[in-house]
Amino acid sequence: MSRYALLVQYDGTPFNGWQLQDRGRTIQEEFEKALGILSRENVRIHASGRTDAGVHALGQVIHFDLQKDIPLVKLCLGMNGILPSELSVKNAYRVNDDFHARFSAVQREYIYFIYKYPLRTPFMKKKAMWINFPFEADYIRKVTSHLVGEMDFKSFCKKISQHNGTVRKIDSIDVTEQDELIKIRFRANGFLHNMIRIIVGTTVQMYRENRDPSYILEILNEKNRDMSGFTAPPYGLYLNKIIYEPPLNFYESAF
Amino acid sequence: MSRYALLVQYDGTPFNGWQLQDRGRTIQEEFEKALGILSRENVRIHASGRTDAGVHALGQVIHFDLQKDIPLVKLCLGMNGILPSELSVKNAYRVNDDFHARFSAVQREYIYFIYKYPLRTPFMKKKAMWINFPFEADYIRKVTSHLVGEMDFKSFCKKISQHNGTVRKIDSIDVTEQDELIKIRFRANGFLHNMIRIIVGTTVQMYRENRDPSYILEILNEKNRDMSGFTAPPYGLYLNKIIYEPPLNFYESAF
Repeated sequence: MSRYALLVQYDGTPFNGWQLQDRGRTIQEEFEKALGILSRENVRIHASGRTDAGVHALGQVIHFDLQKDIPLVKLCLGMNGILPSELSVKNAYRVNDDFHARFSAVQREYIYFIYKYPLRTPFMKKKAMWINFPFEADYIRKVTSHLVGEMDFKSFCKKISQHNGTVRKIDSIDVTEQDELIKIRFRANGFLHNMIRIIVGTTVQMYRENRDPSYILEILNEKNRDMSGFTAPPYGLYLNKIIYEPPLNFYESAF
Repeated sequence: MSRYALLVQYDGTPFNGWQLQDRGRTIQEEFEKALGILSRENVRIHASGRTDAGVHALGQVIHFDLQKDIPLVKLCLGMNGILPSELSVKNAYRVNDDFHARFSAVQREYIYFIYKYPLRTPFMKKKAMWINFPFEADYIRKVTSHLVGEMDFKSFCKKISQHNGTVRKIDSIDVTEQDELIKIRFRANGFLHNMIRIIVGTTVQMYRENRDPSYILEILNEKNRDMSGFTAPPYGLYLNKIIYEPPLNFYESAF
């Protein structure tokens, strides 16, 4: 038996999120189906974390065990040949038996994209949140600076997912702007359900309501989801990178 | 009568190019249809230049005349409400009666995108030429440096379009690389039919054949399309910007 990890990408638009479920096509299902065809084994795949319906991935990591030995390059090319065009494998690694895509991860990085312009563009359709009113990257910077560190993010967690503890530690939030595109990069060990999307939606709403950036602290301290703003759309969110220790490139890889 | 200019964008994938024709949906047709619905006038639209089937535009410019007066913001919002999601208006200008989208243009800028990685990615599907072997931006830089200036580009022009003279002046070609994406930016007063795509395809082919970058001069001097390489795919090409004198922002604009 060998354990493999794959670095994968997907356009989340046509899927009902990562996790297997009764309704709708899921990304996990497509990857397991393709791997089953390629390996002729019945394979269960584990991801670094689930992504919700519509969320994209530039650097999701998954792992699984195979009885037979498949060369890493063949695994990449074979999977890409079988997978629908919205999904792809970017690299393959032969990892240790105790590597776990989810539990071995030490940091997760997500990017939220905002397209800021009065008019829509075909190139950002379902790829970024479109904001058609004035909005300042510097305001986002000021608001989110209050959220770096370890705190109880209960106000920024979907209600039905608050049962397992809502304290998290955000390592950094960076905001950059180029032309009409604003990128907000979040780094943390882990995020709560909808956390980034609620932080982004709340920031937009605060700006519209002319709130001082420090108002985010009042929302935070209330520990109440009803105090924060709307949940920004899933298609602005990209799972960008998962950091492991040792890093993935410590292992044998296809490319 | 008032003359209007629009800055427009389109994802060329589902269209049979810009120009009206008997077969397939064209971009001109969609814009004229939308403008007809909005203005209730029978309108002929002129573009800065045609783009071929599959070619994209980030900054195409078109102009037309209307009998009635339509506020510029309403023109933008109205058109975007009617146009299919692959097409959009980015800005509208009220221009002088002697402004012509094609004949007033003093410079045209196109960008060719190459995705260089052994494996495909969903995010570049029909958005860039995919090259799955080693390829160097610096090699492209060396090859294309020989093509800046005024010369006879007959070797880089589609055969059936060589009748109207094949001398052109390229003002600059810049090559930049970030992660897996190579961008080649071409600036000229005008380009021949398929010129950029043949230059890009020839450069790729020369690299594969281990040719010295200066070999492009031999091809150029032959003035023969049979000497150059393949025509790179249309979906890597973006019409990025049209420069006018006075510039478009000299006029009243919607945004």
